[in-house]
Amino acid sequence: MTALVDAASPVGARRLYRDGLVVPTTGHAPGFTQANLVMLPQDWAYDMLLFGQRNPQPVPLLDVTDAGSFRTALAPDADLRTDLPRYRVWRDGELVDEPTDVVDLWRDDLVTFLIGCSFSFETALLEAGVPVRNLEQGRNVSMFSTRVQCRPAGRLNGPLVVSMRPVPAALVATAVQVTGRMPQVHGAPVHVGSPGELGIADVARPDFGEPVEFEPGDVPVFWACGVTPQAALMSSRPPFAITHAPGHMFVTDVPDSAYRMP
Amino acid sequence: MTALVDAASPVGARRLYRDGLVVPTTGHAPGFTQANLVMLPQDWAYDMLLFGQRNPQPVPLLDVTDAGSFRTALAPDADLRTDLPRYRVWRDGELVDEPTDVVDLWRDDLVTFLIGCSFSFETALLEAGVPVRNLEQGRNVSMFSTRVQCRPAGRLNGPLVVSMRPVPAALVATAVQVTGRMPQVHGAPVHVGSPGELGIADVARPDFGEPVEFEPGDVPVFWACGVTPQAALMSSRPPFAITHAPGHMFVTDVPDSAYRMP
Repeated sequence: MTALVDAASPVGARRLYRDGLVVPTTGHAPGFTQANLVMLPQDWAYDMLLFGQRNPQPVPLLDVTDAGSFRTALAPDADLRTDLPRYRVWRDGELVDEPTDVVDLWRDDLVTFLIGCSFSFETALLEAGVPVRNLEQGRNVSMFSTRVQCRPAGRLNGPLVVSMRPVPAALVATAVQVTGRMPQVHGAPVHVGSPGELGIADVARPDFGEPVEFEPGDVPVFWACGVTPQAALMSSRPPFAITHAPGHMFVTDVPDSAYRMP
Repeated sequence: MTALVDAASPVGARRLYRDGLVVPTTGHAPGFTQANLVMLPQDWAYDMLLFGQRNPQPVPLLDVTDAGSFRTALAPDADLRTDLPRYRVWRDGELVDEPTDVVDLWRDDLVTFLIGCSFSFETALLEAGVPVRNLEQGRNVSMFSTRVQCRPAGRLNGPLVVSMRPVPAALVATAVQVTGRMPQVHGAPVHVGSPGELGIADVARPDFGEPVEFEPGDVPVFWACGVTPQAALMSSRPPFAITHAPGHMFVTDVPDSAYRMP
């Protein structure tokens, strides 16, 4: 007996990853929200929760589990230990492994943070007629560490990380308005043009992700990015943490429209 | 030498309360955000922070201090121990005192939560032409415990508390749209009409605040209310807590417009 499973639905996509498919999640379960994942021991959970409260643009918390639970309100049937295509394991702030599940690493004191992702607003940009160059070019979005520091929370601190998208000058206002209505998935841009002001020397050389080509007349537009909490983990060095691997997100059952303001 | 001090500015209002004026803060420092206050020992702070994350409509967290600090980013010169006109002190969930400062009760493990308040959106309603009956009638807004339970967080749980305002039927949509653009100060109504569905037997007999008269054609409109965390404290009984006294809010330096979406 063969079950029909494909990546068009959240349940189907998660089952494929659980059964061993390892691919970036872009384009899977279109129209459903994908989330960044951070798992931390309870001893560090207060600092992360406060870091999210104090830095809502880069760290919009969509759900926080009870300690020891691998269930989330964002997808009640999902198992957070197995349902992402790839994870990253961090010890003392160093990346030590990239497994495809974390069942053997599970601990009863782990708290999972699910954090909004800009994939959600790329659909909204396209619908509003704003081209998304990284999608057109089949590349991962360009991301940069900036010289802007997040507001610290307990032991957690680190730089604001931004994603950059080239936007035609005549459509920058539209891009601001469309994403400004989605505060839970990073909201309006934090910066438009002038990359040097953020401490970015060259927009063609991102710190994370891939370079994305500009079309004539495009302006670099910068949004707060969900990689920010990973950067904070790298600089604050908790003894143990698990995150998603870049681009290998948690696919939720929540439609993108749920995070759009009217 | 006499300093000119009045309640028109946030700094002036806070100085009057610090120097002993004990009055509700309605109408003081118009145009500036007023906030609900909850102080809890660090041992309970994680639960309250998670309660706010999980219940953002009734518990929109505007700022959370470091443990032991009585300073807030919302008003850098303010002293949170003295600058509210009146406080409430709770032991094991019971109200034990209503002092005008809490300097003698201060502990180095206290964390302060400043929570959005519907006073901020009343100004926006008036500007949009929606009458605010409680202001017209010079009464405190009517508040009700409902049979809707908040999503629990650790040891904290309790009912959703709502504020009710009578709104002319033709202006309900405007009221929804105006407040929907202010998610950090409770956002859109949680319920319009049909009080029985919330478990409210009689809108003329509020659980907190005062009765407010309906004009012909008015419909009861219900917003999530910042008294919800106090209700959770009453049902969850932490050993020690401090809150503002009802209507005696913390006046911040933040203009209401900062919490209005474009």
